[in-house]
Amino acid sequence: MKVTVVKDILDANRRVSSVNKARFDEAKLFVVNLMSSPGAGKTALLEKTIADLKGELSIGVIEGDIQTSLDADRIEAAGATFTHQINTHGACHIDGNMIAPVLDLMDMSVLDLLVVENVGNLVCPAEFDVGEDEKMVLFSVTEGDDKPKKYPLMFQESNLMVVNKIDLLPYLDSELETIHKNARDVHPGLTIFDVSCRNGDGLDAFYGWLKEKVAAKKAG
Amino acid sequence: MKVTVVKDILDANRRVSSVNKARFDEAKLFVVNLMSSPGAGKTALLEKTIADLKGELSIGVIEGDIQTSLDADRIEAAGATFTHQINTHGACHIDGNMIAPVLDLMDMSVLDLLVVENVGNLVCPAEFDVGEDEKMVLFSVTEGDDKPKKYPLMFQESNLMVVNKIDLLPYLDSELETIHKNARDVHPGLTIFDVSCRNGDGLDAFYGWLKEKVAAKKAG
Repeated sequence: MKVTVVKDILDANRRVSSVNKARFDEAKLFVVNLMSSPGAGKTALLEKTIADLKGELSIGVIEGDIQTSLDADRIEAAGATFTHQINTHGACHIDGNMIAPVLDLMDMSVLDLLVVENVGNLVCPAEFDVGEDEKMVLFSVTEGDDKPKKYPLMFQESNLMVVNKIDLLPYLDSELETIHKNARDVHPGLTIFDVSCRNGDGLDAFYGWLKEKVAAKKAG
Repeated sequence: MKVTVVKDILDANRRVSSVNKARFDEAKLFVVNLMSSPGAGKTALLEKTIADLKGELSIGVIEGDIQTSLDADRIEAAGATFTHQINTHGACHIDGNMIAPVLDLMDMSVLDLLVVENVGNLVCPAEFDVGEDEKMVLFSVTEGDDKPKKYPLMFQESNLMVVNKIDLLPYLDSELETIHKNARDVHPGLTIFDVSCRNGDGLDAFYGWLKEKVAAKKAG
């Protein structure tokens, strides 16, 4: 009974999200669903990305948070072309239904990239498409190198893992190689970039990935 | 409709958990529901606690993880009196129904303290009692000082917050005072201890809290 309810919810979400996806595809807008634990640095990564790619990519962000507009305020200040805050009021993830009405508020033709910054949660968001082209997981080295094995769905669903806060590695017991190995054990084809949003290390590779994907979507 | 389903699930859980609670109360066993984001250090805190209080408190641990028995293996090696691993296979929290059958596997009379280590998730576990005396949230300074405002239910439901990894503060932009302030803004009566499981700083205050609570439950 409980399983049926869950299946119905997931099926309904897939239907709504496929409509979102069709609208993004028509606008040739590349969309990323950005997921992580709380505090891995999703907003910090977007702030850096928006600032560093100013003039190259026009970026919109839909912020998902249980409460507050703290993140949308930061994203707007960073210079995003479009920013919208969703407050889920308790819900642990963003789903297609929450995104659908926001599409009417944005002019997709002026955007190159739309990022949906999900609620900080390494579990639930991985189950719900929003209509994105790519799911990506941001992972902080402070979370410990065993996590991809303990929360496998997130790493299986994501095609890209960005490992953040590598500047803290000297002060931790986590090993970067072990994080990579554990993540690729659950998802062999995973693309990985190691970065520090604090000092900028490694961000160029991530920007290169974004620009390639945006160009491919426009060409497609 | 969706809201009704959620309410039914929460009501059903409360009924099962109150039966668990009655069994814990009869055994005068103090029970903590330990919650945090992934990688805040729940298992590390329990390893230290079990080792440091050996001979003083007999501790049982029910480990909740989506997958793997990595944590139960560590807890058993640390010398817990009782260890049991629950794998939720995708579910984002531990509920009363998952705990109930485990109670038949343990001899409560030889335990002073039972800890339910929840799935790493700062959202969903806060909604589900398991029959505990106290909910506690472990918070890592690496998660950023804004998180109590962004995930308020977890900090409202918990009577104790332990702030971990304070040895990393010199390398972060997080301020301990801001973490305290933001947590007390959403829960004015919150008890707070700052610790480092890595170097042992501050753990004695947490152990004192545990021993007091255990003694009170036995006396109760």
